[in-house]
Amino acid sequence: MENFIEKLTREQKEEVKRQMKLYTQGVQEIIPAEELEQKLAKSILNNEPLKIKLGLDPSAPDVHLGHTVVLNKMRQFQENGHKIQLLIGDFTGKIGDPTGKSVARKQLTDEEVKRNAKTYFEQFGKVMDMSKVDLYYNSKWLSKLNFEEVIGLAGKITVARLLERDDFEERIALGKPISLHEFFYPVMQGYDSVMLECDIELGGTDQHFNILMGRHFQEKFGKEKQVALLMPLLEGLDGVEKMSKSKNNYIGIDETPEEMYGKAMSIRDEQMIKYFELVTKFTPEEIAKIKADLETGELHPKKAKMLLAETIVSMYHDKEAAKKAGQHFASVFQQGAIPTNVAEIEWNAGETASPIDLIMHANLLGSRSEARRMIDNNGVKINGEKVVHKDEQLVISDGLVIQIGKRKFAKIRVKA
Amino acid sequence: MENFIEKLTREQKEEVKRQMKLYTQGVQEIIPAEELEQKLAKSILNNEPLKIKLGLDPSAPDVHLGHTVVLNKMRQFQENGHKIQLLIGDFTGKIGDPTGKSVARKQLTDEEVKRNAKTYFEQFGKVMDMSKVDLYYNSKWLSKLNFEEVIGLAGKITVARLLERDDFEERIALGKPISLHEFFYPVMQGYDSVMLECDIELGGTDQHFNILMGRHFQEKFGKEKQVALLMPLLEGLDGVEKMSKSKNNYIGIDETPEEMYGKAMSIRDEQMIKYFELVTKFTPEEIAKIKADLETGELHPKKAKMLLAETIVSMYHDKEAAKKAGQHFASVFQQGAIPTNVAEIEWNAGETASPIDLIMHANLLGSRSEARRMIDNNGVKINGEKVVHKDEQLVISDGLVIQIGKRKFAKIRVKA
Repeated sequence: MENFIEKLTREQKEEVKRQMKLYTQGVQEIIPAEELEQKLAKSILNNEPLKIKLGLDPSAPDVHLGHTVVLNKMRQFQENGHKIQLLIGDFTGKIGDPTGKSVARKQLTDEEVKRNAKTYFEQFGKVMDMSKVDLYYNSKWLSKLNFEEVIGLAGKITVARLLERDDFEERIALGKPISLHEFFYPVMQGYDSVMLECDIELGGTDQHFNILMGRHFQEKFGKEKQVALLMPLLEGLDGVEKMSKSKNNYIGIDETPEEMYGKAMSIRDEQMIKYFELVTKFTPEEIAKIKADLETGELHPKKAKMLLAETIVSMYHDKEAAKKAGQHFASVFQQGAIPTNVAEIEWNAGETASPIDLIMHANLLGSRSEARRMIDNNGVKINGEKVVHKDEQLVISDGLVIQIGKRKFAKIRVKA
Repeated sequence: MENFIEKLTREQKEEVKRQMKLYTQGVQEIIPAEELEQKLAKSILNNEPLKIKLGLDPSAPDVHLGHTVVLNKMRQFQENGHKIQLLIGDFTGKIGDPTGKSVARKQLTDEEVKRNAKTYFEQFGKVMDMSKVDLYYNSKWLSKLNFEEVIGLAGKITVARLLERDDFEERIALGKPISLHEFFYPVMQGYDSVMLECDIELGGTDQHFNILMGRHFQEKFGKEKQVALLMPLLEGLDGVEKMSKSKNNYIGIDETPEEMYGKAMSIRDEQMIKYFELVTKFTPEEIAKIKADLETGELHPKKAKMLLAETIVSMYHDKEAAKKAGQHFASVFQQGAIPTNVAEIEWNAGETASPIDLIMHANLLGSRSEARRMIDNNGVKINGEKVVHKDEQLVISDGLVIQIGKRKFAKIRVKA
């Protein structure tokens, strides 16, 4: 690649540095960082924005904070004048799974794809300025390829290279079948980057292999290679597993202010800084200060977490709602009768349990029938709210408090 | 599969047996033989011919005896009323090699494909009745497949299964790249069988994997599976390597009667019966008799080979020409001055050498300059013909005779 940096003025070089610092914030890996620097220099020199691609699965539009990690990174690029390319992988969605084995990959209709895209737009609008975003559907070019063109595409990648993908490697090792069509999902993702001529592709670290396919195919097609910008995966409320709907450890960006605030307050202390970095608009400098203040003890962890919770609620609702949610939380959990030191009981992440199970496990009462009676008499609270349904299966989250009468408490600590 | 045999009359059962014996002649493998038997029974019962597929590479229409092994098998089916489906793999030929690495697989134009198909027809006409043969081009269906349909096809086969093909397995083991598009050649061949709804696919043993793809895909598409009928590969004149143009060990079916006859006489004694079985119209019974007579000594090997040579020339020219070629051969090689016991010198198969090299290697003269003078003085013959060009590179074939003057002889014996 040409050296654009040496052509810049001193001020322009400073600008490259400033942007590099911003984009590097919270990032797991940039492949390669030197090329990102050169692309920024070229962009400044030619006064042309960079094109930033984000690929989206057309089937799962329920956005939670885990998704906003890349969205916040996109926003940073957008705020500095670069162009966001949202790519809906509708071609894959329309095909479904030809082996019929994967229920998750069911065939979507055109209407479903459009509706899901609209939902993405509405939800992403809470983070980015969607009026400046370009939207693409990959069926536009992929559905037009004929067999000869597919062969041409397949001729640009080796089987050995595809088998390097972790999950393929693992399945081969375990003797689990890989259907030949599965090789085409990374190939398609790579070809999308050729068609979009994007400069950067964003994704989670789990997209490492697929995003490098973009570099591979762009090179094979004689185009400038994209830079892979990989974000870490955000752990959910259990502090262990990747945030996801199926693990029930998520904060949805469509949840009520109270739910969001309460969930945010249950984030583990060790995760706080990561959340500040990955899902808020705080600058690297501001976060450095919070970190320092926590270390010196000038900022109490609980105060920091309240700041985080309020910030998150503000982003997806507004300041007013965030303030109210904070007050609600305080009245229920803090000004209530919960003592500061409560016995903790351990639980596995992601499991469910009924109120009676919880009471028994915490040894708060002597028998299941006693527990049942206590619930019937309105004597049991969970997270400050009266238990009505004895048999309801609750998702166990870290910090959940069970209360019997006025004096008996237990707090769940999810096992790391 | 339904049991059709039990529905046959005694005579019909005899007919199945007769055909089975015929089709089994010289065959390497039938996968599975029971299904072939059932298909024959069904064909007799319903009075419907079986469909016999032979796939052809559109790029190499120069037919030699090695190719006629499958043609003679086809002819047997045709003579019993079954339908021959010749499939020209023009889609592959038109694509060429997308990686551009294989020179052999260069892109062919429509015209070249048509011309090559015509040449096949002319040459095959010497073995089969081409007026009863159906001709297909696979571009008819393959060129129409779009990406979605290709994905559907790819969804019906696993990567592990494809990697079982010997050459793929070997390349993976050696770390040699396999381009993803190469996986599609066996897939296409399998899909062709789906489209042709053929009952049997013929090929050499080197087509084992590809022909089983036909069974695989027919089953996946809910069709009756074809039977694979694999013929052994015919060794060439060196008695070792598979007959092929590139090895220069072949008898072309367009060669002159004299060339054919001479080459046929150079076939190794041990190969004779195999040639009778694979490239002539002799029946299993007739061949059994020749074999027995050779064993008892009633038939001299030289006589048997003359019968073989005459039979081959008759097939591709006529009886008259075959007779004349036999006389020509006898006058040059047998009634000439070549003694019956000539010193033999060993040589590697497929190598080339100049007349001077041959003379020196056989120790017929003392020095290269002496050899050069002798050639200049018209004193050297090879296979009975005067050597004119001293430096011409000759392809070494088994039985080649070098003669210096009237008395000195040497005969090449190609190493097995």
